[in-house]
Amino acid sequence: MRNSFAIGLDVGGTRIAAGLVEPKGHIVREVKLATPKAAGPFAIVDAIVGAVGEITNGVHPSEIAGIGIGLPAQIDFTRQSVEYCTNLPLAGIDMRGLVMSRLKYPVTIDNDGHTAALGESRFGAAKGFKDFVMVTLGTGVGGGVFIDGKIYRGSRGFGGEVGHMVIEVDGPECPCGGRGHLESYAARPAIVREARAAAESYHGSSIGRLAKGDLDNLTAEMVVKAANSGDEAAAEVMARVGDMLGEALVGLINVLNPQAVIVGGGIGESCPLVSQRAAARIASEALAGRRDVRVLVAELGNDAGVAGAAALAFEDHDSREGIH
Amino acid sequence: MRNSFAIGLDVGGTRIAAGLVEPKGHIVREVKLATPKAAGPFAIVDAIVGAVGEITNGVHPSEIAGIGIGLPAQIDFTRQSVEYCTNLPLAGIDMRGLVMSRLKYPVTIDNDGHTAALGESRFGAAKGFKDFVMVTLGTGVGGGVFIDGKIYRGSRGFGGEVGHMVIEVDGPECPCGGRGHLESYAARPAIVREARAAAESYHGSSIGRLAKGDLDNLTAEMVVKAANSGDEAAAEVMARVGDMLGEALVGLINVLNPQAVIVGGGIGESCPLVSQRAAARIASEALAGRRDVRVLVAELGNDAGVAGAAALAFEDHDSREGIH
Repeated sequence: MRNSFAIGLDVGGTRIAAGLVEPKGHIVREVKLATPKAAGPFAIVDAIVGAVGEITNGVHPSEIAGIGIGLPAQIDFTRQSVEYCTNLPLAGIDMRGLVMSRLKYPVTIDNDGHTAALGESRFGAAKGFKDFVMVTLGTGVGGGVFIDGKIYRGSRGFGGEVGHMVIEVDGPECPCGGRGHLESYAARPAIVREARAAAESYHGSSIGRLAKGDLDNLTAEMVVKAANSGDEAAAEVMARVGDMLGEALVGLINVLNPQAVIVGGGIGESCPLVSQRAAARIASEALAGRRDVRVLVAELGNDAGVAGAAALAFEDHDSREGIH
Repeated sequence: MRNSFAIGLDVGGTRIAAGLVEPKGHIVREVKLATPKAAGPFAIVDAIVGAVGEITNGVHPSEIAGIGIGLPAQIDFTRQSVEYCTNLPLAGIDMRGLVMSRLKYPVTIDNDGHTAALGESRFGAAKGFKDFVMVTLGTGVGGGVFIDGKIYRGSRGFGGEVGHMVIEVDGPECPCGGRGHLESYAARPAIVREARAAAESYHGSSIGRLAKGDLDNLTAEMVVKAANSGDEAAAEVMARVGDMLGEALVGLINVLNPQAVIVGGGIGESCPLVSQRAAARIASEALAGRRDVRVLVAELGNDAGVAGAAALAFEDHDSREGIH
């Protein structure tokens, strides 16, 4: 029998969200807290344990299928180990073991792009698609590739890093050390960089006003807001983000021929221009026969990570119990 | 029981190769002929039927598992239909039905990048790898993606077009109509274009001599030959081909995390510099944890297409008979 709930955790560079999730993906209870990043890995485990305690208060343990945790890290999924992690001090830490020893529930960890894609797949915009690509635009550009109804993890579990496709040889530097990757054009830092330059050359743009006259205060969210309300300079910056996203997706669509592309993440979901421009590029430049790919905006927003991590826990529970 | 032979056909823009192949991939008999391209689709079917007649002469029909045909076309694999074909007049033609009605063997058609990848997978450089990417550099750039031991075809069978990944937004025009695709840097026409320019600016390069003083005669094979014998200008052209291949592969490796990349096609197999440079780019620019991907040169040469098409026929026969 399926359990009543699973616990989904979305651990980000700045914030941890923990949710008690029922089988249809509804988050029944949720706790959010700042990630104690500077305090080290054990403080992060403490924070997770505390958050899970809060949301499971009064719920009988037998009702909980398990815990799924999405981490902003490269996970060797088979070994359930954190191999690389740039934004949090978790590389080499046995997160699964540490959480499991304190909470007595089965724990499964995965890359946060994968859990978000799983969330959209089971409960959101990607429902019904067996083959799709998810791309999330936020502080970085992440994603996941679904093949035949399952996350494709590649040989070591490191698949899905759509943000690190090269779209300009010798382009701007990417946080990963490479050059001209999608992330160096379509994540928050790139948007701020381009918008600062645009604000300086466009007279009358509202970008400077939104930043209260000091472009050091400028955030990507301000640029999105200006673009959405018709500011020409900001719209040009965001259109370029969509174009570059489209270029990366053209390559991926030509190789993978997916049914759909889901555009998510804080930036992808808040600025319609981005997915519109990406879709236009795909329609004009993907090889014949692939241009009917659906380009859709993610539906779950920030909940995708929590719901997807819970889905991971439900599915692992079912496969342990032999339920299909 | 497995049959003694399958028939593999590799139908190219200029040449058709038909082989009688035993289960371990050895081509026991082979016939090659020019593709009667201008004479239309029925002449191509006639040529295929004639070639199969020659190689099966004296073989009892019960010994033949079936016919596999690799075509330079976009194939809807499930429907077994030719959807798009730029180099031959086959779009919309029921190649499978036409050949089957004349030869009385089961026929399976597939994209020629897929059959070449299948050949290398079963009998060549990719033996033992479940997850790999094949890229073929020739008149165009093709390929195939293997996932979990099988060709990944995508939602309509159009997967694997590695040559049409964007590596330079607004780069040179690609034969497909796009811009800055890998094919516009790494296929024969691009090599000739770059080598002509290099020959004009490098004094003393052997490129001009190989073309007998007339750069209109220059072929990509001449450039490869000059590069392999140490000509600086030619080596620079081919190094650039390898670099651009590497850039496209960095993106694909970051998304798919394969165990291996197989570099094939006439250009990829004849010029070691190309795969060396691509491997160096991957080693320095792919995300951490993926840099151990093996970069190998294809082993079967021109035989990959025939052997892989035969493997397709063997495997289809086995799945019809319930043999695994």
